[in-house]
Amino acid sequence: MEIKIVQNVLAANDEIAAANREMFREKKTLAVNLMSSPGSGKTQLLDATLAAFAGKLRAAVIEGDITTTLDAERLAKHNAPLVQINTATIGGDCHLEASMIRSAASRLDLDTLDVVFIENVGNLVCPAEFELGEDHKVALLSVTEGEDKPLKYPLMFRVCDTVLLTKTDIVQHLDFDMDAAEANVRKINPAARILRLSAKSGAGMDAWLDFIIAGAEKKKAV
Amino acid sequence: MEIKIVQNVLAANDEIAAANREMFREKKTLAVNLMSSPGSGKTQLLDATLAAFAGKLRAAVIEGDITTTLDAERLAKHNAPLVQINTATIGGDCHLEASMIRSAASRLDLDTLDVVFIENVGNLVCPAEFELGEDHKVALLSVTEGEDKPLKYPLMFRVCDTVLLTKTDIVQHLDFDMDAAEANVRKINPAARILRLSAKSGAGMDAWLDFIIAGAEKKKAV
Repeated sequence: MEIKIVQNVLAANDEIAAANREMFREKKTLAVNLMSSPGSGKTQLLDATLAAFAGKLRAAVIEGDITTTLDAERLAKHNAPLVQINTATIGGDCHLEASMIRSAASRLDLDTLDVVFIENVGNLVCPAEFELGEDHKVALLSVTEGEDKPLKYPLMFRVCDTVLLTKTDIVQHLDFDMDAAEANVRKINPAARILRLSAKSGAGMDAWLDFIIAGAEKKKAV
Repeated sequence: MEIKIVQNVLAANDEIAAANREMFREKKTLAVNLMSSPGSGKTQLLDATLAAFAGKLRAAVIEGDITTTLDAERLAKHNAPLVQINTATIGGDCHLEASMIRSAASRLDLDTLDVVFIENVGNLVCPAEFELGEDHKVALLSVTEGEDKPLKYPLMFRVCDTVLLTKTDIVQHLDFDMDAAEANVRKINPAARILRLSAKSGAGMDAWLDFIIAGAEKKKAV
């Protein structure tokens, strides 16, 4: 019984996600869903990404938080459209759903945008179950979290196409083996794109930015 | 409609949690629920705690994971009873529920135990909604996660009675202000006990161990 209810929720979500996907296709706007544990560096990555893209790529951000506008405030200095979703006011606390993205996207002028970044609620479990209609699902794994996380939270690392090992600037102060972490990602998702980066030091950021630029160009060309 | 279903689930859980609470009271066993984001150091804390308590306090661990027995394997070297819960086999992936604790506790000889540690699924959102019948809800916040987390995940920091700022040994390599983090906890939960510690270096561990010992003694005395 309970499982059936969950399936109905997911089926309804998938339908709206398909409509979102069609919307992003028509508007030729790349949609990128950033997911991770709390504190893995999603906002810091967006901060560095928006700074790098200023004047080059037209980017917007849909900010998902349970409550507060702290992340949106951190990003407000960039000249990028920002839409805040607070899930606490909607009833679904722990993840974003396709209907929230549809509503948030209606407040953006997609014709003027190359890429929309979606910062999901900090949660390595529930967001993985909800399609948003995005082009890329990106999972961030901070080097502070332990190499075993892909094995322990396999759904997230299975559904994503890209994994970012973040905060590499502090890895020398930790017992974290980046090769072991990558091997664990590959056990769950052999095809995943894996990038190592530090939004703070800038190391590895070029490959991430190139990945987004290439995705946006491909989307325009279709 | 959906909200009603959720309330029914929570009401059913609360009923079993009350029975668990009565069981732990009768058996005079302290029950401690450890909750945090993935990678905040719950297992490492248990590792150091079990080592410190060897021969002094009789402790057991109920390990909650979506899948894998990696955490239980890390703790197996200690001579402490361990029960593994894998939520993926039960249908509820993102948190522990009271019924799981009831079932796990039935596999422990509570008469011989002073304290049962419950390591919840790594998730700063959903576990906060589910009473387990525990004596203490302890939220771990790693210094790698950012000072804003209590504000962004308020339910967790509101329901817990104790907050541990973990991994303090690496704080000097981070832009993390421990006083600001504590102030943010206090905004959400003025009465919370806040301890700073590093399970790796041992700094601050004594206050944590004393807190558990005092709780176990109080439980025996009632």
